[in-house]
Amino acid sequence: MVITLLSDFEDVYPASMKGVILGINPTASIVDISHSVRRHDIHAGAFILMSCAKFFPPGTVHIAVVDPGVGTERRPLAIRAESPDAGIQYFIGPDNGLLIPAAKSIGSFEAYSITNVALFRKNVSGTFHGRDVFAPVGAHISKGLDIGNVGMRIFDFVELDFGKVEKKDDSLHGQVVFIDHFGNIVTNIPADTAADIKPGDVLEIRKKRVLFQTSYGFCEKGETVALIGSHGYLEIAVNQGNAAALFDMGQGDRIVIKIQGKRLSGPKQTATNNC
Amino acid sequence: MVITLLSDFEDVYPASMKGVILGINPTASIVDISHSVRRHDIHAGAFILMSCAKFFPPGTVHIAVVDPGVGTERRPLAIRAESPDAGIQYFIGPDNGLLIPAAKSIGSFEAYSITNVALFRKNVSGTFHGRDVFAPVGAHISKGLDIGNVGMRIFDFVELDFGKVEKKDDSLHGQVVFIDHFGNIVTNIPADTAADIKPGDVLEIRKKRVLFQTSYGFCEKGETVALIGSHGYLEIAVNQGNAAALFDMGQGDRIVIKIQGKRLSGPKQTATNNC
Amino acid sequence: MVITLLSDFEDVYPASMKGVILGINPTASIVDISHSVRRHDIHAGAFILMSCAKFFPPGTVHIAVVDPGVGTERRPLAIRAESPDAGIQYFIGPDNGLLIPAAKSIGSFEAYSITNVALFRKNVSGTFHGRDVFAPVGAHISKGLDIGNVGMRIFDFVELDFGKVEKKDDSLHGQVVFIDHFGNIVTNIPADTAADIKPGDVLEIRKKRVLFQTSYGFCEKGETVALIGSHGYLEIAVNQGNAAALFDMGQGDRIVIKIQGKRLSGPKQTATNNC
Repeated sequence: MVITLLSDFEDVYPASMKGVILGINPTASIVDISHSVRRHDIHAGAFILMSCAKFFPPGTVHIAVVDPGVGTERRPLAIRAESPDAGIQYFIGPDNGLLIPAAKSIGSFEAYSITNVALFRKNVSGTFHGRDVFAPVGAHISKGLDIGNVGMRIFDFVELDFGKVEKKDDSLHGQVVFIDHFGNIVTNIPADTAADIKPGDVLEIRKKRVLFQTSYGFCEKGETVALIGSHGYLEIAVNQGNAAALFDMGQGDRIVIKIQGKRLSGPKQTATNNC
Repeated sequence: MVITLLSDFEDVYPASMKGVILGINPTASIVDISHSVRRHDIHAGAFILMSCAKFFPPGTVHIAVVDPGVGTERRPLAIRAESPDAGIQYFIGPDNGLLIPAAKSIGSFEAYSITNVALFRKNVSGTFHGRDVFAPVGAHISKGLDIGNVGMRIFDFVELDFGKVEKKDDSLHGQVVFIDHFGNIVTNIPADTAADIKPGDVLEIRKKRVLFQTSYGFCEKGETVALIGSHGYLEIAVNQGNAAALFDMGQGDRIVIKIQGKRLSGPKQTATNNC
Repeated sequence: MVITLLSDFEDVYPASMKGVILGINPTASIVDISHSVRRHDIHAGAFILMSCAKFFPPGTVHIAVVDPGVGTERRPLAIRAESPDAGIQYFIGPDNGLLIPAAKSIGSFEAYSITNVALFRKNVSGTFHGRDVFAPVGAHISKGLDIGNVGMRIFDFVELDFGKVEKKDDSLHGQVVFIDHFGNIVTNIPADTAADIKPGDVLEIRKKRVLFQTSYGFCEKGETVALIGSHGYLEIAVNQGNAAALFDMGQGDRIVIKIQGKRLSGPKQTATNNC
């Protein structure tokens, strides 16, 4: 069974979690989604988890720890989500909203408060529930433990979303949810909402002209492009450059995208001249 | 069987080690502990290895390479450590002290000088014993090779410790052994030595007032806290900040922790007001 | 079966590729070679892949994605390479030269244009062929799919090499192909071409005196050394320092190495005095 890990731990700490997991389930395939989530940035972690989870096979257990409240009374959470496409996927982590968008992206879901201390490591530390609570619980579930054994089902879990998206006559209004390592600006505007925009359309973002395209590859180096990124959301990118720096935008910023209309029509565009 | 890797190689080089390991033991589960140990910092590498090893299942082979003396006459070393709790754990790496604290943290141990060239890759390079010596030897041991086959048992291996810890009337004197990615200051003062300090006690470090707590989560953003970290040692942290920068401390620095005594007693502290 | 991944994706994106792979081949052992290739630097990616591939066991599938042309008409490529030493190794990635040096380093090879869309993920994105094309094709090959099923064999794939190497009377002329994380300068001059240079020989590079050695370990901290690195090519390193910074050299730069002749003969050199 596959177990994924996501955290803001950077280095060293994920290894102890893997040791604990492999002690319980020696045949687990462990995949790091990311350990470089911006520290304590629950929204960024939630977005990354949501955008990756659906690509994993049915039965995958996702353990995610971005947890500024570790050691306080925030609850540990286990979620069982299911859909015909993605099958059953499990999410284990703190009850601070981190897991919710990913669970919703899979389909319907049930949340359980983890209270069964028999599943924990002996001597749970005050600072590292990833290793002492979430890793062992996730490993047990990956071995087939019924999720009902972790604790009671709850309905008052902490919610989290990525902000409001509005579609007006000639503009889309949304929010920046994630800046990736390349400085690409990922918005909360899903492909569906942006479905009216077609390759070749001209957009305006913070007074800059941006062409909508299907891929980075169609642009010259340094040109700015908007596209539906691999996450399934509208992204702004600079081909081989840094869009977040160019537009001076950070996670959480509002973004307004004006649709200027079609470019002048002409011959079918080729890879070299349509940015 | 689990094989862990620890090095100061950063990128690219660990992959060749994994290729060699999987060629010998195709079913090995390989876990990276860290490849970002500060370059040639044997003490930092030894501390990280020591703090992670005990979380891995019995039979784990730990291959660790922080090795400024590669290619010289420093010996390659294989260690078999054992305790009722951690079971048998193996450590493979250079004879420069790197493996010793981890081996001691498991329990009693035996050290062997690796001299059996039949276990090495053909054409051992002068610069990459991780790939050509330690990886194949570790892989063979993970497949069940008796450690006595690597070479003779030795007793004059290079020792390493993390410096003196002293407990005086109202102060603890120790050393900084590791600064993690968050700037948390990890000292060589073990939980046992600090057992008299209780949550809510006020400490003084470099003229700064620091509250002892059980977890980061109890502090406001930016507040300084001392706690027993997940490594099992006294740590100084700034909640969502960088303690090493604030205290201007680096690895190897001496640290003096004055115990100021209890805070004014009062109602039971809550998560929001006790830093 | 082993599947390696190499890309310039840094973080997050490789995880989706792994999810797709494990959905098709749940028993694959996935090894990251690097995801920190300098962005869009096909030459650096090709060099890293070439230098690592031969250390992996027969049957390994290497999926490599450094792909500035993603979404354009550049073809996806699958290669089957073979030699008595390395066995059969597969390479999957864009037809931009990235895979060619690695394939040649294994031995003879055949290249196929990937056109069988039945092997792809449904809804191939315009920006992430690593996840939607290369990962599933590589996973199917690792499960035993005959490479002939991906598409037609081609002979007009894009070539790539690492520049000319010239040997003159008292100098070697080559090119910098890779700067590693330590600032070591890796050239395109193979061990064979440099075979006349012996440990203890004095070289001159950009007016600096450099001693040829067999390993870093023989040098004092801060001293400059030339050696045949673990990649099998002539490297310039500063022991515990950064050679690229010292020599002001970057990837792609020409490098001229003058051979000054033997050092004054003397007693057998020891580890402490021969740099």
